Amino acid sequence: MIKTPYLLFLGDAPDALSAKVAQGIKDWRPDASVGQLRMEGCKADVKLPDLTLAEAKAAGAKTLVIGVANRGGYISASWKKVLIVALEMGFDLASGLHNLLRDEPELVAAANANGGMLHDVRVPSVEYPIANGKIRSGKRCLAVGTDCSVGKMYTAIAMEREMHARGMRATFRATGQTGILITGGGVPLDAVIADFMAGAVEYLTPDNADDHWDLIEGQGSLFHVSYSGVTLALVHGGQPDALILCTEPTRAHMRGLPEYQQPSLEALRDTALTLAWVGNPNCQVVAVSVNTQHLNEADALAHMAEVEVRIGLPTVDPYRQGAARLVDALDGITARQKPEAALTGHITPDA
Amino acid sequence: MIKTPYLLFLGDAPDALSAKVAQGIKDWRPDASVGQLRMEGCKADVKLPDLTLAEAKAAGAKTLVIGVANRGGYISASWKKVLIVALEMGFDLASGLHNLLRDEPELVAAANANGGMLHDVRVPSVEYPIANGKIRSGKRCLAVGTDCSVGKMYTAIAMEREMHARGMRATFRATGQTGILITGGGVPLDAVIADFMAGAVEYLTPDNADDHWDLIEGQGSLFHVSYSGVTLALVHGGQPDALILCTEPTRAHMRGLPEYQQPSLEALRDTALTLAWVGNPNCQVVAVSVNTQHLNEADALAHMAEVEVRIGLPTVDPYRQGAARLVDALDGITARQKPEAALTGHITPDA
Repeated sequence: MIKTPYLLFLGDAPDALSAKVAQGIKDWRPDASVGQLRMEGCKADVKLPDLTLAEAKAAGAKTLVIGVANRGGYISASWKKVLIVALEMGFDLASGLHNLLRDEPELVAAANANGGMLHDVRVPSVEYPIANGKIRSGKRCLAVGTDCSVGKMYTAIAMEREMHARGMRATFRATGQTGILITGGGVPLDAVIADFMAGAVEYLTPDNADDHWDLIEGQGSLFHVSYSGVTLALVHGGQPDALILCTEPTRAHMRGLPEYQQPSLEALRDTALTLAWVGNPNCQVVAVSVNTQHLNEADALAHMAEVEVRIGLPTVDPYRQGAARLVDALDGITARQKPEAALTGHITPDA
Repeated sequence: MIKTPYLLFLGDAPDALSAKVAQGIKDWRPDASVGQLRMEGCKADVKLPDLTLAEAKAAGAKTLVIGVANRGGYISASWKKVLIVALEMGFDLASGLHNLLRDEPELVAAANANGGMLHDVRVPSVEYPIANGKIRSGKRCLAVGTDCSVGKMYTAIAMEREMHARGMRATFRATGQTGILITGGGVPLDAVIADFMAGAVEYLTPDNADDHWDLIEGQGSLFHVSYSGVTLALVHGGQPDALILCTEPTRAHMRGLPEYQQPSLEALRDTALTLAWVGNPNCQVVAVSVNTQHLNEADALAHMAEVEVRIGLPTVDPYRQGAARLVDALDGITARQKPEAALTGHITPDA
């Protein structure tokens, strides 16, 4: 586990989007960060207090989290100076970059000299098993998208928050680096060896109480040819009881693939459900989550009203409207029953 | 590339099935192996001459291939003695085991001392790209299965042989360790990092001549919850023009998953085709390949006749009947045309 609270390192972020990891942590764990650390020229601002390393340390910060990605995902020389000082002051470091903290000899040396931890959250820390497909107790909801980066993580976290506010038992299950940094744990699914993807998802969403919901962070899209295999491992490893369809209605084409059209919500619904039934014949599509950040309020509401009639399911933007109707849509879904022989197995508590 | 000819190491194989890698090489590259090397207690026999290391060396063998898997996939102490002698005599070693030759210090030392190569074909040797989904020239056929181990590799190799016999341009593209050892190259797809699976398949099946066919070895099944993500990466990374449905009709349940039923051929056809259209809207299901090894001749023929009527596609067991009708089924499929802008790109020759 990664120690909190964090100090969020924004470095010399060239724009707001490059600090989206920090933004996600700020949005969903405002309590987990004492402040932000920005270098000269930083164009991002997640609206946390600007603190020096010393000020953050005094405020209780335990881990400096790299909340920014530069082109190529590498660790620049100017960053490295700050990171080394942080280690010398007793911080741990955490990063979801492709290039690893542990591959930087100066950082390793400084960590060793000062007893600091280097958390590369993009590297699996567990030898995941091959999936066994056994029915697990508890309930699971998976966000599936028309495309990458359409709001699957936000949808799942927003539902967890709403459930907790209602006193329901629920756990957001992170499958990507931002989610892992938000929660402090999870599976970096895109970095898992192919044969073990579905097993990693089973590992992430184990047996649980019958009234407990796992809210599983989706990845990629069944319609995104670069990453669809990762998505299907989530559908089959997660054996979801409920699917939420996630979309961003202003996309001109699939992310990074200009020749590929976005699928319709109907196509996503039918394809995802057919595949989900392999792992869980009771799976239902229960709602639609629309990322309306590029629409004004009137257009957003009109669009969602049209989708709700067309698809016949509750349709909301959880960021704009809250996740109450998404959680309501799970009403009446009951946990699968394990075969008699399996009922003597170990039931893990809520994570 | 792995140097041929091979000497096939069967070790102390407890039964014929444990030597299925060697059997596959013998079946499909009988010319590539000078003989087999069996230790005391070996219960397998692929019907090649039993040779000592010295005899094999004299017969021209360049690489000792571990053609056997023991439980757990490890390299036993009794094997190691033989492998070290082989390295000392100038052989290279090749293995598709989970446990790696390169992780055995004594083998590494012997290889270094004698200039020998250690080929762990289960380890990707290339940094594969993220898939870009661009239309590639040439034609591609992918074998998809109702389950794992139903004859997808045999189907693809048998089709390559038939095409070569007809003077057609075709390349079997190996995606698993046996296929890689048969051909000397390929992508060990189940060992690739999740994000790069589809990109590895694109890498394996590059631009080619308009009349050239890639026969892509399938893996897993869209209906096998442990491995379906790997299968979908093949469907989307391979952007096949043609799919062959592969099945083994006597299976009681999905391999390794006693709670899971086999899908019908109709379900496989519809699911695979819907997903394949994302990557290639012209994709067609052209034939059915049935592994009838557990049926007698009369039952096999009756079963295939029934399937042929029911599915309405040529239905054959290529191992029993040859692959002629599977190749005939590709008649009339034309290569996709790349957009004008891409036509100036490099066209790679046949592999």
